[in-house]
Amino acid sequence: MKELRISLAQINPVVGDLAGNARKIISYIKKAKKLESDVVAFPELVLTGYPPEDLLLKPQFIKDNIKFLHKIKDETKGILAVVGFVSLDKGLYNSAAIISDGRVIDIYNKHHLPNYGVFDEYRYFLPGSRSPVYSLCGIRFGVNICEDIWHKDGPARVQALMGAGVIININASPYRMGKVSFREEIVLRRISECGIPIVYVNMIGGQDELVFDGGSFVVDGKGNLLAKARHFSEDLITIDMMVEKTGQGGSSVNSKKELKILLSGERSADEIKMVSPRKKRRRPAIRTKKTAVMPKLEKVYKALLLGTKDYVQKNGFKEVIIGVSGGVDSALVTTIAVDALGKEKVHGIFMPYQYTSKESHEDVEAHADSLGIKIVTIPIEKIYESFFKTLSESFMGTGADTTEENLQARIRGNILMAFSNKFGWLVLTTGNKSEMSVGYATLYGDMAGGFAVIKDVPKTLVYELCSWRNEKEGRALIPERILWKEPTAELRPDQKDTDSLPPYPVLDPILKGYVEEDSSFEEIMKMGCDLECTRKVVRMVDRSEYKRRQAPPGIKITPKAFGKDRRFPITNRYRSY
Amino acid sequence: MKELRISLAQINPVVGDLAGNARKIISYIKKAKKLESDVVAFPELVLTGYPPEDLLLKPQFIKDNIKFLHKIKDETKGILAVVGFVSLDKGLYNSAAIISDGRVIDIYNKHHLPNYGVFDEYRYFLPGSRSPVYSLCGIRFGVNICEDIWHKDGPARVQALMGAGVIININASPYRMGKVSFREEIVLRRISECGIPIVYVNMIGGQDELVFDGGSFVVDGKGNLLAKARHFSEDLITIDMMVEKTGQGGSSVNSKKELKILLSGERSADEIKMVSPRKKRRRPAIRTKKTAVMPKLEKVYKALLLGTKDYVQKNGFKEVIIGVSGGVDSALVTTIAVDALGKEKVHGIFMPYQYTSKESHEDVEAHADSLGIKIVTIPIEKIYESFFKTLSESFMGTGADTTEENLQARIRGNILMAFSNKFGWLVLTTGNKSEMSVGYATLYGDMAGGFAVIKDVPKTLVYELCSWRNEKEGRALIPERILWKEPTAELRPDQKDTDSLPPYPVLDPILKGYVEEDSSFEEIMKMGCDLECTRKVVRMVDRSEYKRRQAPPGIKITPKAFGKDRRFPITNRYRSY
Repeated sequence: MKELRISLAQINPVVGDLAGNARKIISYIKKAKKLESDVVAFPELVLTGYPPEDLLLKPQFIKDNIKFLHKIKDETKGILAVVGFVSLDKGLYNSAAIISDGRVIDIYNKHHLPNYGVFDEYRYFLPGSRSPVYSLCGIRFGVNICEDIWHKDGPARVQALMGAGVIININASPYRMGKVSFREEIVLRRISECGIPIVYVNMIGGQDELVFDGGSFVVDGKGNLLAKARHFSEDLITIDMMVEKTGQGGSSVNSKKELKILLSGERSADEIKMVSPRKKRRRPAIRTKKTAVMPKLEKVYKALLLGTKDYVQKNGFKEVIIGVSGGVDSALVTTIAVDALGKEKVHGIFMPYQYTSKESHEDVEAHADSLGIKIVTIPIEKIYESFFKTLSESFMGTGADTTEENLQARIRGNILMAFSNKFGWLVLTTGNKSEMSVGYATLYGDMAGGFAVIKDVPKTLVYELCSWRNEKEGRALIPERILWKEPTAELRPDQKDTDSLPPYPVLDPILKGYVEEDSSFEEIMKMGCDLECTRKVVRMVDRSEYKRRQAPPGIKITPKAFGKDRRFPITNRYRSY
Repeated sequence: MKELRISLAQINPVVGDLAGNARKIISYIKKAKKLESDVVAFPELVLTGYPPEDLLLKPQFIKDNIKFLHKIKDETKGILAVVGFVSLDKGLYNSAAIISDGRVIDIYNKHHLPNYGVFDEYRYFLPGSRSPVYSLCGIRFGVNICEDIWHKDGPARVQALMGAGVIININASPYRMGKVSFREEIVLRRISECGIPIVYVNMIGGQDELVFDGGSFVVDGKGNLLAKARHFSEDLITIDMMVEKTGQGGSSVNSKKELKILLSGERSADEIKMVSPRKKRRRPAIRTKKTAVMPKLEKVYKALLLGTKDYVQKNGFKEVIIGVSGGVDSALVTTIAVDALGKEKVHGIFMPYQYTSKESHEDVEAHADSLGIKIVTIPIEKIYESFFKTLSESFMGTGADTTEENLQARIRGNILMAFSNKFGWLVLTTGNKSEMSVGYATLYGDMAGGFAVIKDVPKTLVYELCSWRNEKEGRALIPERILWKEPTAELRPDQKDTDSLPPYPVLDPILKGYVEEDSSFEEIMKMGCDLECTRKVVRMVDRSEYKRRQAPPGIKITPKAFGKDRRFPITNRYRSY
């Protein structure tokens, strides 16, 4: 047994910011060196940020990323660093540089490239085929990347059979509900097969639709959790691991046979020996952190918070503006914005019209007071009238319909955008996933804005999040009436959402089945709505694709979000009913 | 030598319309039977339409597609049909059903799955590995799909070595400038290797961003063009081919050796024998068509026309509305719309404000007269004033900036959308690629609408297309002054595009380099702009990604269009300069 001190650098890079990311990586190398770590491991593609998307098609970007890798290399005197970057050989690879004491010792290329959901890795990368094992003064370890650890007979198994005593798996694994326990299960399954500890390093931060939630962890060869980093914030955790000089594999006849089978085809493995760059002397003990488990609603809320904060700040905005209506959606978005950015950075605009109720006005005021923010009130009456007059001749003889409702929403959208243009504030939109699904929203109206905070949050979960936030505050931070009054768009007299939609507790399971789970019409029919109602909902979802295509991005929190996670044709005559 | 009569059914399916597509396929099978063809071949994924995108993730959709394949099967008495569909085995395959005389004889699975540009085939499909040869009363032929024919040692080579006398390659190959000759070159290269004729069947029709341009063709084993279908419209061409009973391969020692090498790994080939379902009797001769080559500008124009027509009609719209300004962009879009849909289906709205010139008004009228359409004029003065008054208190102490310009554009956007909502007309937007690239457009303003006809057409090409169209008409269908006056957005006094942008003949090559070719900053610098100007253009492109993300879809005509062809992060700090 030998002791290996390893630091997990769970950092927040910015896509494309090679210089800034390299600076941050170097600063964490320095922190790890201060802690006298033998190894410091960074997330997948930490140098470019993840996902860099079509930046990867720019040869200059690839060259620049390699240039900055060499800058990082020069800062690794006395330590071994594992750094995610893009390597270039016969094509591009999603790679980890194994850098020790100022030299790039090896480059590991990811084998298993995800190409589903939000992932497009086959668009850019070739799959790797080598599964090397590194030996650092006799301690053998393997490095692999993200989805490599999902596969039973993947690189981890080969590395274990080659005698690795520990696996370092680096990730850019985005959040969705249920993902945290899913990851831990996967890692435990690999451990049960390989019998050696796994060090799981994840990224944190928001990037357009995605939030990387961190929660990096270390599990020993028996499946015990040894260390766990925070969720949703940068962290550096360090652990002293007792590693077998050689792992479970590499000795018995059976394991040699299995290794031979696994390495058939183009796959290969080799051993690369290094001398530890750390000067041997007794180092002070360290305390290893084990962050407590975070409840589900808190994770969702924190994901929304981090996603919003990073979208705003990484895009160079300082302040945001929100159209507040007195409803629960804009109340939640405003609360998240205040939690993410601070109350002085959040501007609310209330834009009443004749259908706006006294209650809405009161609720807007009460919530603003509760948050400590100021609300500007701008009635849209005059503007509406001028549109109405201007259009009256052209629309003569037609009755009122959604045109007039949409017009109210679009006037509000224009006002928000005017404030955004004039003062440089980013408009946050307030539509939820239930609305986005059925198209119960106005394009260029309430859908107008730069970032759609709760776009992937179903309405029923909107309520749960508000209640959770109030509970956490120990008071009605969001006024109770906002949570129990009936939802309405207030675009015509006495309008209720239920005029057009089934109640949300009925609607949301149908949407989950149809949108997230691709269930058949028959399966959805079992979810409690009658034939007519189910058909109507499915039809509304199908027909709203054109609106969603023009919606701003928002944070993915479910297994399937609108955006690059669900790629539907607009022109589509398929009807499942 | 034996005679094989083969029909190429170049049809226009609708994505998702399984019943409608099956009906159309059956009607073309009947036409081919009337012509006494032995074989009728349809495009790739003709049954589902292409690309079906995430419809493919719905198990019910896959089942339904197979159900309709069986309906088609029942209509193949007396003929052999090659029909693109989705097959399901261990996963999904992009397949061709070989159906003869009421029986599915075999299913060929596409080997080479494109996963770049607009294509995401690895997201859905597994690659095939079999390269069978079919023998129809002694005539051997191979079937493969689209990109399979691009590869030197792909299925075509294996099939040739197995003794195929002809290859049928079915496609859903979208248009871009230069694609037609590119396809012919690829096919000629394969023929020079395989020495046998190739039957290339393409799809036609518009699908969201894509236009399939048809132009199906047949080339003999020496590279001579034997038949060619029309571009941009449905067509059925039939040819009598003299096919060697066994092709070049299948006999010599060398070819057996090569075949053995090609079939290593998981690849395989086999021979499937069939009896021709056609009753032997002398059939009347047929005339085979060879459509003439179409000039470049005509192809681009026809692509825009078909893309617009199909988007409008396949989405159930009957009429369209366009905001006309007197500028060249809206003039071209209006002309295309009239050509695509007929003048009675096209509504123009002119929305002047105080910066709108007398010339613009005259040019709008002159062009409308020339096209024979009516224009509604709706001044935005009153609405603008009401916005201005409503916002004056909030904006007190600030000077005029782009806020006021955007407001004009957004009022116009709202008016267009009000007409769209009230009368069910689709709004066509008029922005060109140069504007889309640098963000010289107002989100929710002139960008508001359902379909962006010339979104992928650079401004310099806009002029060329107008001139070509006028030439074709033999008169100034688009008034000459629209073509030579200086471009202006008319959003402030004496505004010119060149206040904000380099002249378009300078701008467009820079954009081509940066956007379409991913050239480095150094390479773009050589394109004739100075450092400051190049830097400014590149910066504008980088910073406009958020706008493009909310733009309506439009027709791809260049090697790289905005939309799913170019996937850029919004949050992106990479600067190449």
